[in-house]
Amino acid sequence: MAEPSIRPNEAALRELLDGPWAHVRQKARDHLRGELFAPVAGLDVEQHRDRVMEQLAAIAATEIPGYGFSSAYGGSDDVGASVVAFEMLVCDLSLMVKVGVQWGLFGGAIQALGTEEHHARYLPRVISLRLPGCFAMTETGHGSDVQRLRTTARYDPRTEEFVVHTPDDDARKDYIGNAARDGMAAVVFAQLITGDTNHGVHALLVPVRDADGHPLPGVRIEDCGLKAGLNGVDNGRLWFDHVRVPRTALLNRYGDVAPDGSYTSPIDNPDRRFFTMLGTLVRGRISVAGGAGTAAKAALAIAIRYADARRQFERPDGGEVALLDYRAHQRRLLPALARSYALHFAQEELVRTLDDKSRESFSDQDQRKLESRAAGIKAVSTWHATQTIQTCREACGGAGYLAQNRLPQLKADTDVFTTFEGDNTVLLQLVAKGLLTHYRDSFGALDPKEMARFVAGQFLGVVIERTAARPLIERLVDATRRRGESDIRDRGWQLDLLEDREKHVVEGLARRLRRTGSGTAAFEAFNDAQDHVLKAGRAHVDRVVLEAFVAAIDRCADPETKEVLDRLCDLYVLSVVEEDRAWFLEHGRLTAPRAKAVTEAVNSLCAELRPHAVTLASAFGLPDEWLAAPIALGAEEARQEEQRVGG
Amino acid sequence: MAEPSIRPNEAALRELLDGPWAHVRQKARDHLRGELFAPVAGLDVEQHRDRVMEQLAAIAATEIPGYGFSSAYGGSDDVGASVVAFEMLVCDLSLMVKVGVQWGLFGGAIQALGTEEHHARYLPRVISLRLPGCFAMTETGHGSDVQRLRTTARYDPRTEEFVVHTPDDDARKDYIGNAARDGMAAVVFAQLITGDTNHGVHALLVPVRDADGHPLPGVRIEDCGLKAGLNGVDNGRLWFDHVRVPRTALLNRYGDVAPDGSYTSPIDNPDRRFFTMLGTLVRGRISVAGGAGTAAKAALAIAIRYADARRQFERPDGGEVALLDYRAHQRRLLPALARSYALHFAQEELVRTLDDKSRESFSDQDQRKLESRAAGIKAVSTWHATQTIQTCREACGGAGYLAQNRLPQLKADTDVFTTFEGDNTVLLQLVAKGLLTHYRDSFGALDPKEMARFVAGQFLGVVIERTAARPLIERLVDATRRRGESDIRDRGWQLDLLEDREKHVVEGLARRLRRTGSGTAAFEAFNDAQDHVLKAGRAHVDRVVLEAFVAAIDRCADPETKEVLDRLCDLYVLSVVEEDRAWFLEHGRLTAPRAKAVTEAVNSLCAELRPHAVTLASAFGLPDEWLAAPIALGAEEARQEEQRVGG
Repeated sequence: MAEPSIRPNEAALRELLDGPWAHVRQKARDHLRGELFAPVAGLDVEQHRDRVMEQLAAIAATEIPGYGFSSAYGGSDDVGASVVAFEMLVCDLSLMVKVGVQWGLFGGAIQALGTEEHHARYLPRVISLRLPGCFAMTETGHGSDVQRLRTTARYDPRTEEFVVHTPDDDARKDYIGNAARDGMAAVVFAQLITGDTNHGVHALLVPVRDADGHPLPGVRIEDCGLKAGLNGVDNGRLWFDHVRVPRTALLNRYGDVAPDGSYTSPIDNPDRRFFTMLGTLVRGRISVAGGAGTAAKAALAIAIRYADARRQFERPDGGEVALLDYRAHQRRLLPALARSYALHFAQEELVRTLDDKSRESFSDQDQRKLESRAAGIKAVSTWHATQTIQTCREACGGAGYLAQNRLPQLKADTDVFTTFEGDNTVLLQLVAKGLLTHYRDSFGALDPKEMARFVAGQFLGVVIERTAARPLIERLVDATRRRGESDIRDRGWQLDLLEDREKHVVEGLARRLRRTGSGTAAFEAFNDAQDHVLKAGRAHVDRVVLEAFVAAIDRCADPETKEVLDRLCDLYVLSVVEEDRAWFLEHGRLTAPRAKAVTEAVNSLCAELRPHAVTLASAFGLPDEWLAAPIALGAEEARQEEQRVGG
Repeated sequence: MAEPSIRPNEAALRELLDGPWAHVRQKARDHLRGELFAPVAGLDVEQHRDRVMEQLAAIAATEIPGYGFSSAYGGSDDVGASVVAFEMLVCDLSLMVKVGVQWGLFGGAIQALGTEEHHARYLPRVISLRLPGCFAMTETGHGSDVQRLRTTARYDPRTEEFVVHTPDDDARKDYIGNAARDGMAAVVFAQLITGDTNHGVHALLVPVRDADGHPLPGVRIEDCGLKAGLNGVDNGRLWFDHVRVPRTALLNRYGDVAPDGSYTSPIDNPDRRFFTMLGTLVRGRISVAGGAGTAAKAALAIAIRYADARRQFERPDGGEVALLDYRAHQRRLLPALARSYALHFAQEELVRTLDDKSRESFSDQDQRKLESRAAGIKAVSTWHATQTIQTCREACGGAGYLAQNRLPQLKADTDVFTTFEGDNTVLLQLVAKGLLTHYRDSFGALDPKEMARFVAGQFLGVVIERTAARPLIERLVDATRRRGESDIRDRGWQLDLLEDREKHVVEGLARRLRRTGSGTAAFEAFNDAQDHVLKAGRAHVDRVVLEAFVAAIDRCADPETKEVLDRLCDLYVLSVVEEDRAWFLEHGRLTAPRAKAVTEAVNSLCAELRPHAVTLASAFGLPDEWLAAPIALGAEEARQEEQRVGG
């Protein structure tokens, strides 16, 4: 490994990565340490749940739970901080998820879907953890298709109560965090029925346990049992047998029932109402994307440090080769590192938008855009985490398989991130749908029937959704076009390439869907195009992520650091292009020699960035205490030293 | 889903898949059932180890352990049966691995590296499990680079003993199965030293525990602790502090030390000797490939049955869509199913070669070919298992994350298969090296130094290694060439395409490596080409696997079954081509329209095979008792029925 001519400044990197909520990150680093928050392996389920509950209680005593809530109830009105604090909880992902369930999903739903009375009554107890709760949306039969869930809440005007009921096992609430052991109440999503009218899915606050922790009458609770990971979270199943709750249990911001049973809503269209309600819960997806991102960073920090220290096979000039000096090893880890940076900045942009104080007055279109972006980043980030942690495990060999080195737990815990808060395959379709302008301003369910209806509509042409960095991007692209520049590392060319791909894929999709009939034929047409739909979603996210990376580099003040980040961004975008270079070749966007040049550039960039890899991974700022893996914390170096001295 | 016009016959499929060791598979299905062999989840480490040891003892009472051993010691001289029996142990992969450690690695090493006296003395006790043992090769510091391991066995002529010694923690034996709890002895690989001469790595039989299970004097044993999976196997670390064993402890088939300390060997060249010794252990890699294959099949059987039953989102014509009717879902599962079939047949071919009774008289070249093929199939099969089980988990959503549905355990247990018995990245390089004809007949370590030496050599042109099916393949390719046929489903064209890719990649690699200098420059050249090296290995394996699939179809007597298998083989090869179509485009092997046609063909084949998916997965013949996952065994159908009747 040659001595690099430039060096990134770790402090400058850290500052850029920490971003606007640096103080929240630093607080987490300072406070979440010591015995209570040290990663541990090998606990049985009950011990693990106990430990996580203990950690949760300790966090309840800090300002963290309040970040996302109104100051009127002890919060600090800082939604961005709540998301950032969540993503820092990598010392145990069970804790991360439990925090998310209690204060993000359960508390968040009360805040977003309830009104003043609910807030005053519940939020202080939610924040303080005196009221642990569940977010009871998913049913066994309907996970992805929330609009069709089958729990009912039927209004009884005689007693002014709702009767919450689970008709059968298909409609039981499933995988519900906090349900199996700790939850006292649940926000239950159910079909709201008054008289003979079904008003669609609404949420109600339903108590599920008494003060002694026993299920209340009519409530049946079952433990989901052992899972691949996240066993510190008590996921469970809930059944309601004609459980009566007062009329005011309805979280009535988007739909209310008067004592006489008459239904009112500020939103007439039931689809629009449903998706507006769901849209208020967008924070959950954004949080999961952030949490997956941190897990991937932790795995990379472990694997990169180990690869820098670990040696295997002799060099011709003596000594043994560090794993990270092998091209194959660089190719496994460094593009993943580049993507982690890229996704980090895209995530930050998403959190800024979520946190935008003007969001209350967002247009429907802006809100849809945020939801679509959240869906896309969540899908890509969680897949990235799954793949990256897997790669890191393999890159650490047998050592990576030992629980003490943390990779097994990171892998097992994050595995379900690709599924929860929306299955990734479903989410990418949601993104694609948002890109079809015809749909942009409409509300509609994401089922084949709805998608097929698109066939009858007019497609108005692709409008590239603007990211925050759009003026900068346009300047770069324009400059390149003027110069006729085509260097493979030219940023304008890269940006243009990804934008062009998105446009072409989405336009092609629109044309394709319009060619078809209706009914069964339309479903077949939609289904035939499903891989095209997923590709459109993916192409969009890749472009958005690149733009966020470009904008972040523009914010970096240190020139050498900026130069290294520029190379890292090259590596990100060129490895994205390399992965999909068949498409670029098939569509005449790259010639064969240029496609080969992309591969060569990825190789060169790996070699150029190799000397900075440890610094780049360390700049994520995950304390050694959280990484906890001996192989990342000097064990390998110590053994080599012992051998050197002994031999 | 339209009614298919043809139907595969499950019995015919089963017969073809079961192959020459059908009786061994059937015995496993009949005997490994009931409470003792039922998959269980949630055991703690000690309970799990107890259970596996109990299962092992039950298996010891059957004929299974003897399959691989000579009839002179109670075995049945049927190596193929031993590999096939191993791969059937999918009810608990910890059991599979423990069986492999005891009878494959430990017993296998005594058989392969020891001589008559060792066989007579130890094999009966190994087979009966009275002598549980370890295979102590890997060291903490040297996992992949076995030639450089640092444990020493120094001969002391005064006492006619070897002194086995661990110089430091770097040289401790690590990840050793059976070491932490059950092993009484170990085959220890160490640098054999007489006087001042190091004769390279040899194996010795070293007792490690006394009759009470306590470590013997000078032996230190540590538990590796909790792992990602396989926690029913007691992996441990071993240190030897000047432990003395008699001269006859040396497994002396390939190197012996006389009482006076003089060393003799039937193989003069130390490299050749080392690789010959390693070569006798090839069964381990073949077994791991088979075990990974079964785990992937189990995961597919679970995910495909669930996808066939599970419904989500409404159809335009009423009812809900089965997951397996979605193109995206088909694309996740069906190419993986096709690859599982392809790898199954390639594995069978490998086992037949291993089992070849004429193998004792194999030329060095044939033996190298077997080793290279074993390395390649092991790498590809274990990566296939890792990816497929991951995909199956995701395809089953939240249900796939529950331990009761088995996918978590299958994933966690097989994860290390890509690492043990040779890291996959290292193995694929071994395959590539074998393809460079210059190396074919030589023996050399797989380190950069050795690879770099190639630079100075002459490359004699690529010779496509023949598979058993070669005459059939040549007939198909020739017919295609004569006809000028270019239908994308034409088998001759497909075979030609993969053969041509392999040839081109290997030739290019050879040219590239010859262009360079020596010393450090040569290492850089080798390292620059490392992705090219891996690609060569991969291209070779893809071609060999395809040929095995083609040969298997030729053995199928039932016409409709044969037709379905032909489509499945199309799906295998075209999804391989699709994945790498960038290469085919870059090298002028496919035009853009034809590359797009490959993608379309993969889509069509998924749709054509979808009606047969459940049958194809069931034909693997893994009993419901082994799958054990409720989602694969009617739970989903039962809930839908409850809903239908209730609603």
